[in-house]
Amino acid sequence: MSEQQLKQHRDAIDRIDIEILHLLNQRAQHAREIGEIKGGGIIYRPEREAQVLRRIKEQNPGPLPGESVARLFREIMSECLALEKPLSIAYLGPEGTFSQLATLKHFGHAARTVACSSIDEAFRLVEARALDYVVAPVENSTEGAVGRTLDLMVSTPLKVCGEVVLRIHHHLLRNSAGTDGIRRVYAHAQALAQCHEWLNKNLPADVERVSVASNAEAARLAAEDGSCAAIAGQAAAERFNLLKLAENIEDEPNNTTRFLVLGHQDVGQTGQDKTSLIVSAPNRPGAVHYLLAPIADNGVSMTKFESRPSRAGLWDYVFFIDVEGHHDDPNVAKALQGLMERTSFVKVLGAYPQAVL
Amino acid sequence: MSEQQLKQHRDAIDRIDIEILHLLNQRAQHAREIGEIKGGGIIYRPEREAQVLRRIKEQNPGPLPGESVARLFREIMSECLALEKPLSIAYLGPEGTFSQLATLKHFGHAARTVACSSIDEAFRLVEARALDYVVAPVENSTEGAVGRTLDLMVSTPLKVCGEVVLRIHHHLLRNSAGTDGIRRVYAHAQALAQCHEWLNKNLPADVERVSVASNAEAARLAAEDGSCAAIAGQAAAERFNLLKLAENIEDEPNNTTRFLVLGHQDVGQTGQDKTSLIVSAPNRPGAVHYLLAPIADNGVSMTKFESRPSRAGLWDYVFFIDVEGHHDDPNVAKALQGLMERTSFVKVLGAYPQAVL
Repeated sequence: MSEQQLKQHRDAIDRIDIEILHLLNQRAQHAREIGEIKGGGIIYRPEREAQVLRRIKEQNPGPLPGESVARLFREIMSECLALEKPLSIAYLGPEGTFSQLATLKHFGHAARTVACSSIDEAFRLVEARALDYVVAPVENSTEGAVGRTLDLMVSTPLKVCGEVVLRIHHHLLRNSAGTDGIRRVYAHAQALAQCHEWLNKNLPADVERVSVASNAEAARLAAEDGSCAAIAGQAAAERFNLLKLAENIEDEPNNTTRFLVLGHQDVGQTGQDKTSLIVSAPNRPGAVHYLLAPIADNGVSMTKFESRPSRAGLWDYVFFIDVEGHHDDPNVAKALQGLMERTSFVKVLGAYPQAVL
Repeated sequence: MSEQQLKQHRDAIDRIDIEILHLLNQRAQHAREIGEIKGGGIIYRPEREAQVLRRIKEQNPGPLPGESVARLFREIMSECLALEKPLSIAYLGPEGTFSQLATLKHFGHAARTVACSSIDEAFRLVEARALDYVVAPVENSTEGAVGRTLDLMVSTPLKVCGEVVLRIHHHLLRNSAGTDGIRRVYAHAQALAQCHEWLNKNLPADVERVSVASNAEAARLAAEDGSCAAIAGQAAAERFNLLKLAENIEDEPNNTTRFLVLGHQDVGQTGQDKTSLIVSAPNRPGAVHYLLAPIADNGVSMTKFESRPSRAGLWDYVFFIDVEGHHDDPNVAKALQGLMERTSFVKVLGAYPQAVL
């Protein structure tokens, strides 16, 4: 009886698989014809991919979760693209970091990913067109590259053409079970800060907290020394084969890291976009308020505002601003026009589809 | 005109995607019902997966290549399985080695893969049921674990339930362009041997050849020192961001590495199977010929025969034998029966589907 039921389900799966097989090939054929119409031009279209993924998630009836079907369609698009030409992507290594996860999440596994030893090198390889795109952390990263990424964006000729948002969970990792005998906890300074309350409550006060270059490095150190623990994510736990003494120990439950994708192309409108820019302002009372007025006046939402001392010496400060909408949307275009009238330096880094979570 | 053509192709892709989306969910629903019928039993069935992949490749009309559709269906099965319970897989690290590639090729990216620091540890974690399966190199590997894998198989209670075959390409890697100034080439001893002729022809005779623990280690060393090159594969080139001075430098063009998948389960017949066994034989003239007679007499093909000095001290030699067919096939069963009558030690490691290349 149950053998017969099993067989019925397996036969059904076999029929479904052949249908999927033919549809995948029809899809690839259309993708190939699109490539021919474009005649060797840019084949990766972030705006189109974002629209496809949003639609798939909206219309997903289950039982597969939205992330599963998005992941599968990412891979399907990745294979269809690779049929034309595989994309190559630079990220800040080592492997096993959130940067690698973000890269694979965005580009799928048919892309060629290259772990670089510094974020500078990752930018340089893409600027020189040795690789196609770079994935760079810009907010709340525990991999030590955020400040440097922002500095590089001031001068790079690359354009932002996408964003990736990863939900970050931190775990307490060790090479043996139990917290007895832990004398030291390693982590990136950001991660130590993000788990501050949890550490206060759950570990003795005399356990040293030591900040290191990355959480992957912390995990490596903890793997070597049983008297040490590390705070790091799933990828590092797997890579260094550590036990999770406690999961999700971050104080803030909606802890995310945001990455930008940069390349050589402009991205069209999708209806759910962001525009990133850098502006300069003199260091005097009211300067920022005056500068930002055109954004508010045109009904544009600002999703990020971050100031950073200028390295170039020409201005006192530079501001990294993200707004909702595409720079070709009329209200955003007007806001940008207003900004340009009020400061000598406005660099539009790019407009791109909002991350499909 | 071409804008309109583009739109037609994109609309067609959108329709196809929604069809695929619904079929994927129907497939997952059937997989879930199969899981319920089994009531918490073993959900990963290597024999079934091999049959699905063989069929997909046979019936693939293109333009997607067979490997692309096999890779996508591996991921689809991986996601459907993960809907029940994600599999966890141990392999010999570090990341960026062929062992990792083999693991992902076989189990897809929804599986949880764990890089272990030794092959012993990888076996131990699966034997203790901390992880579900181990992927271990057994032939022509350049990662230094083959002998140890064979030794572990003598005593492990785990059963072989699959094989993975990777075509191995070696490249000459360096951190700058051109071969000028290379004073040393690092690689695993196996890789040095496999590229011997090429090195003789293409590098000056005074370039030192230094064997190290793994090709990944060789690439790491070459990344640090511009006067050194490394022989390693694509994954290591990407991981350490090295240039390929020359591709596919292996002397033998059909260079493959074979891995076995071990777990706790017996695998059913698929019609294209292999059985792996270990037998002992005394060290006296004619002993091996006498021992193997039942295999030939029953018309069973032997695909591998490898002798190894016994570590246990009870026998002089142990032999690792692979035969075509499943131990439940009548001729294989008779051959095994014959073997058991002729020696005191026959261990059937397992029967499993032949690798889907």
